[in-house]
This record gives sequence, structure tokens and C-alpha cells, in this order.
Amino acid sequence: MRMVELPAGTVDAARPGQVTADDIARWRESVRERAATALGGFVRDRCAEYVRAIPGADLVSELLASSVSGGKYVRSTFTYLGWLSGAGESDAALRAAASSELLHAFALIQDDVMDRSSMRRGRPAAHVRLAEWYAAQNLAGDAGHFGESAAILLGDLLLVWAEQMLRESGLSAEALARGWPVYDKLRGELAVGQLADLVYDARHLPPMETVLETGRRKSGNYTVRRPLELGAALAGCDLNVRAALGRYGGLVGEAFQLRDDLLGVFGRPSVTGKPNGGDLREHKATSVITLAAELAGPGQRAELARLHARARLSEPELARLRELIAGTGAVRRIEQMIGSRAAAACDSLSDAGLNDFVLAALRDLAVRATDRAR
Amino acid sequence: MRMVELPAGTVDAARPGQVTADDIARWRESVRERAATALGGFVRDRCAEYVRAIPGADLVSELLASSVSGGKYVRSTFTYLGWLSGAGESDAALRAAASSELLHAFALIQDDVMDRSSMRRGRPAAHVRLAEWYAAQNLAGDAGHFGESAAILLGDLLLVWAEQMLRESGLSAEALARGWPVYDKLRGELAVGQLADLVYDARHLPPMETVLETGRRKSGNYTVRRPLELGAALAGCDLNVRAALGRYGGLVGEAFQLRDDLLGVFGRPSVTGKPNGGDLREHKATSVITLAAELAGPGQRAELARLHARARLSEPELARLRELIAGTGAVRRIEQMIGSRAAAACDSLSDAGLNDFVLAALRDLAVRATDRAR
Repeated sequence: MRMVELPAGTVDAARPGQVTADDIARWRESVRERAATALGGFVRDRCAEYVRAIPGADLVSELLASSVSGGKYVRSTFTYLGWLSGAGESDAALRAAASSELLHAFALIQDDVMDRSSMRRGRPAAHVRLAEWYAAQNLAGDAGHFGESAAILLGDLLLVWAEQMLRESGLSAEALARGWPVYDKLRGELAVGQLADLVYDARHLPPMETVLETGRRKSGNYTVRRPLELGAALAGCDLNVRAALGRYGGLVGEAFQLRDDLLGVFGRPSVTGKPNGGDLREHKATSVITLAAELAGPGQRAELARLHARARLSEPELARLRELIAGTGAVRRIEQMIGSRAAAACDSLSDAGLNDFVLAALRDLAVRATDRAR
Repeated sequence: MRMVELPAGTVDAARPGQVTADDIARWRESVRERAATALGGFVRDRCAEYVRAIPGADLVSELLASSVSGGKYVRSTFTYLGWLSGAGESDAALRAAASSELLHAFALIQDDVMDRSSMRRGRPAAHVRLAEWYAAQNLAGDAGHFGESAAILLGDLLLVWAEQMLRESGLSAEALARGWPVYDKLRGELAVGQLADLVYDARHLPPMETVLETGRRKSGNYTVRRPLELGAALAGCDLNVRAALGRYGGLVGEAFQLRDDLLGVFGRPSVTGKPNGGDLREHKATSVITLAAELAGPGQRAELARLHARARLSEPELARLRELIAGTGAVRRIEQMIGSRAAAACDSLSDAGLNDFVLAALRDLAVRATDRAR
């Protein structure tokens, strides 16, 4: 793998006006590649240690390796930026940051089972691949159930490995001790947020505030806020910086989730790598769907309710549902909510005393995380 | 809760001939109660932190609390004995040892989903309770799928909390640093062993050695050997002691799994708290079933194969299968294997220089773990 390296000291020595969009793009790419290299090595070593001797070892190893390659590495980038808010560039901190991709891979692989999503990043989901493998072995059990069970176990391994990679990152015991409380909160919120998410259902619409709160817990906090706070805690940032990053992270995370909700209904599958009808078919109470119901006039509301009541939605019904949702003005309103959160997030950084590179990178990411097509 | 406390120094000051069966029984009970108290407090605090605000919080909290109460506490007792092999009594070490029950609860709650077991410890399994709750909410989704997904997430929480409780046990950073490699191995083997177990199937019988190896990885190591090694590593035991405990643990763990396999076919549900036909219905390639096939004469083999080929087994067919298995001599042979392993395990402790209390307790547990009705 080609390594993109910035000249030494790029981050630490940044001065006002010196940070270009190109610098940030190159830096992001370098973080991504260094994280990918660290993750690839870590997963390869663990597979050699544990997976080698079991049936299906090649497929299991391939699925574990690919679960941490090809993503956007949003969480590792935010974790590393949290670190850079209080300390200098560090390979150990980068490995610690990269570990968040293992945690994310755990969440995705188990989510896909729970949401019955068959596609991930444009390829069949892990549980689908495992079920196909089982069926090809000519074993007599239920291949679908095997695929789901095996994918859950792969997720468990990734959850364990995430913590191991953080612990073995090379950061000092003092740095890690500062990080664990944030890390425990991140993992606890993730599982409990997902649990709450399973209960909400578009046919029993919870209020918009509940939907936003669930999104914050399940996704926003875990994508932006907690990774930033984790990095900042590891680096020993002062409370002022941690509070500013927390505010920024809360707002960007919420905007990130709102964008995800829009993509879940209106995204282009060829770009997102997953079907765009999932949230509608599963009757998920996302922000888009909940807000549409709140904004709908009586006629729209009746038709929305009728479509939400369908156990299975055909393609024409999905198209009609999208049209109805857009017609309520919900999409425009969500776009406004995203924009205002991203702007407020950037404002909240002004007085934190961050260096110019970190400030510029966080502003860049506030836009990227919220104004994206995948 | 009544606390059973031994006179201070019972363990440390034990002298040859002074340790009675009563001492050990009281000590076991005291470990159990202290571990239960520590676990109860830890889970209560975590539920207050995370679970309070979500739908179904009362049920989720109840399931999490009951998942670590009422078990045999085999793993915490072995972990604590590992500690006592190299250090004195310690509340912090006891909390560290107790954390293994959270890990076990994680494994059971997810196993029950994967094995489709509806009963655990004489009560409906967590996924069944969660499905019932969902159905009672009158939500329109698939209650069974919700129950399974929610139980998986409860398992994830328990997996995270196990590590957190160990880390926050109060043991020194040096002690924990010695323990993590064993802990990582324990968790990795557990998940990968369970994965291998899903693939083996009584209709494609793997060789007995493969079945024993899977049992070692999935259950034996994780029940006896690794807990002992973890405790010994935390206490800083020398390599001689760790090797002796490893040999003992490997043998007792294997005997424990063999007993489990016998109980899975012949156990009394009123005592084990779960149906005794599960392994047969699921066509699991356990030691009992594999050995029966190896020992069967041609007529028995044909009838075994015919019954194993059934997708669903009726009660009379289950009874016939039990009769056939016993008729091959497999039960007698497995009993011999259990007995010889327990004896060899006790022998392997002779030269480890353990104090008399620990030695007596380990000998007592070798018998209890392998000669039990539940």
C-alpha cells in the first residue's frame, strides 16, 4: 500500500492561513491509509492466532479483514483529531484511533443481521456470505440461521478485538486510563441505542425529539462526539477543549445521522452500496419519516398511514412513499436542520484554543460528514 | 444477603490435614455470595447509567440482573483459586474473578439464540421473554426476531461490562497487565470455538478428536483452564504454578465438557433447568453422540443414522436414540474418560507447591465440576 505522508510537523506547525484544502485532503488520506495498514496487520495476526484451524477459516478471515477495509474511516479520523487537539502526531494514538473501525465493524455486521440487510458496501453482507458457504458445504441445518449466528460471533470477535487493539496501541497506561470511561460510555450507548432503535416503529410514531435522542445515542454520539472525546481524553486535553469538542461532536453527529436518514430513503444505491428502501420497508421511525408524518396534511397523513401499514412494500409503493415524504416538506426541513447544526458546530470551536490545522480539519469534516452522498 | 465469612486467614494459614470438606464448602459459599453481591451492584449501576431511559427498561434490567444470579459461579471460583495460588485473599481479586460471570452470561444469552433454546435455568430464555414483551406492546414487527436481536444486544452489553468490571476491579495496573493476554485468549477462543461448534453436525460426524478439541476451545478452556490461568497471571504466579494449573485446568475442563455432553442427553430437566433433548434435536456432534457412532455395531449404526437424518425427532424417537446410545457403551466409556481426567488433573498439582487450602479446594472442585447433576 502506498503511504501518503505529510512533511513532518505539518499538523503541529500549522499557522493561520497556511492550511489549504489540499493539505487537509492529503492528511485525511494519510490517516486513512495508516489506519488501514494498522488494522490490516492487527486482524491478520488475530486470524492467524484464532481462526486458522476452524472450518471455513478462509472465508471467516476474509470477512473479518474486509469488515475494516473500504469504509470512510470517519470514526478513526475524529478520534485522531481529538488526540491532536491536545498532543502531537503519534503512531500509537493513530493505532488507538484505528481501533474504532473494529468497533464500527462489529456494529455493522450485527446490525445487518438485526435489520435483515443483505447488502453492505455494495457486496453481500457477512451473514449472507456465511449462509451461502454453509449451504455449499451440504450440511443439513438451516443455512440462514447459521449465517446469522456466525455473523453475530464475528461481530463479538470484532468487539473484543477493538478493545484489545486500543489497549495494545502503545499509548501509556496513564493515557489509556483517561480514555476508558469515554470508551465504556461509547460502547454502552451504542448497544443500548440500538436496542431502543429496534422498538421504535413507523407505525407507532414516537415524537421527533425521541427519534433525535435515539439517533444521538445510537449513531451520532458514537460516530463523532465520543470518538472526539475519546481522542481528547487519551491526549489529556483540558476540560475547556473537551467541552468544545463535545458540543461540536454532538451537533455534527446529529447532522450526520440526519443525513444518514435522508440517504436511507433517497440515497443512490450505486453510491451508498446498500438499497435505499430499507428504512421504509422495515418501517423504521427515522427522522425523515417521523417529520413527514408531523408535517403531513390530512390527505397525505392518511396515505402515509396506509403505506406504513403494509407488511411488504412494492417498488411503486416505495416510489409513492418517497414522493409523499418529499411533498410534506420534510426533506427541505431536514436539510435545514443539517445545515444549521454543521454551522453551529463550527462556531462552537472558536474559543477552544485549537491549533489552526485541527480547527481547519474539523471544519472540513463538519461539512463532509453532513453533506455527502454515501 | 447473609454473608458467609471464614475466620480471617483461613486460606492463607491452612496447614496439612487442617482443611475439612466443611471448610471448603463454606469457603465456596462465601466466594459465591461475595461474587453475587459484587455482580449485583455492578449490573445495577450500569443499568442506572444506560438502561433507565429506553422502552422496556424494567424487563431489560431484570434480565441483565438475573443473567448473573443463580448460576454455579464455577468460573469465578476457578479464577479466584488461580489468584489464591499466588497471592492472599483480596476483595479486588474477588471482583476481578466475579467479572467472569458477566462473560459467561454473555455467552449463554447469545448461545440460547443460536441454539434456539427456549429455557435457561428453569425459566424462559432472555430472547423468549423479550419476544413476549414485544408482542404485548402490540408493535407490528416480528416479535421473535425482535427477541433474538434484543438478546444479542444484551449479550454485547454483558461482554463489554465483563471487561469493564475486570478493569475496574481495583487490581493494580501491573496485575491487570499480566492478566490481559490470558483474558484476550479466553474471549477469542470462546467466540471461535462457538463458531466451529455451529458447523459440526451429527449427520456429518467429525472424528472424536475434533469434537474433543472443539469442546476444549468452546467450553473446557473457558470454564476451567483459562479462568485459573487468568487468576494466576493476575496474582503473578511463577511459570511452574501456571503450568501445573494449566494442565489441571485442561483436564478438568475437558471432563466438565464431557459431563455436560452426558447431561445434554441424559440429564433430568428438573435438575438441569433445561430440556435434555436439545443436543439430539439439534443434531449436535457432541462427544456422546460421536462416540456412540464410533462404537456402534452395524445394526445400531444404521438405526442411529436413520434417526440422525430426521429433521424433527418425536419424544419416542428421542427415547429410542438415548437407548441406542447407551447400548453402544458410549456412556460407560465417557464416564471412564471423565474419571481418569479428574484423577490425572489432581495428580498434576502435586509438585506445584500450592498451599494446602488451595490444593484441597482444587481437588474438591475437580470432583464437583465433573460429577454433577446440573
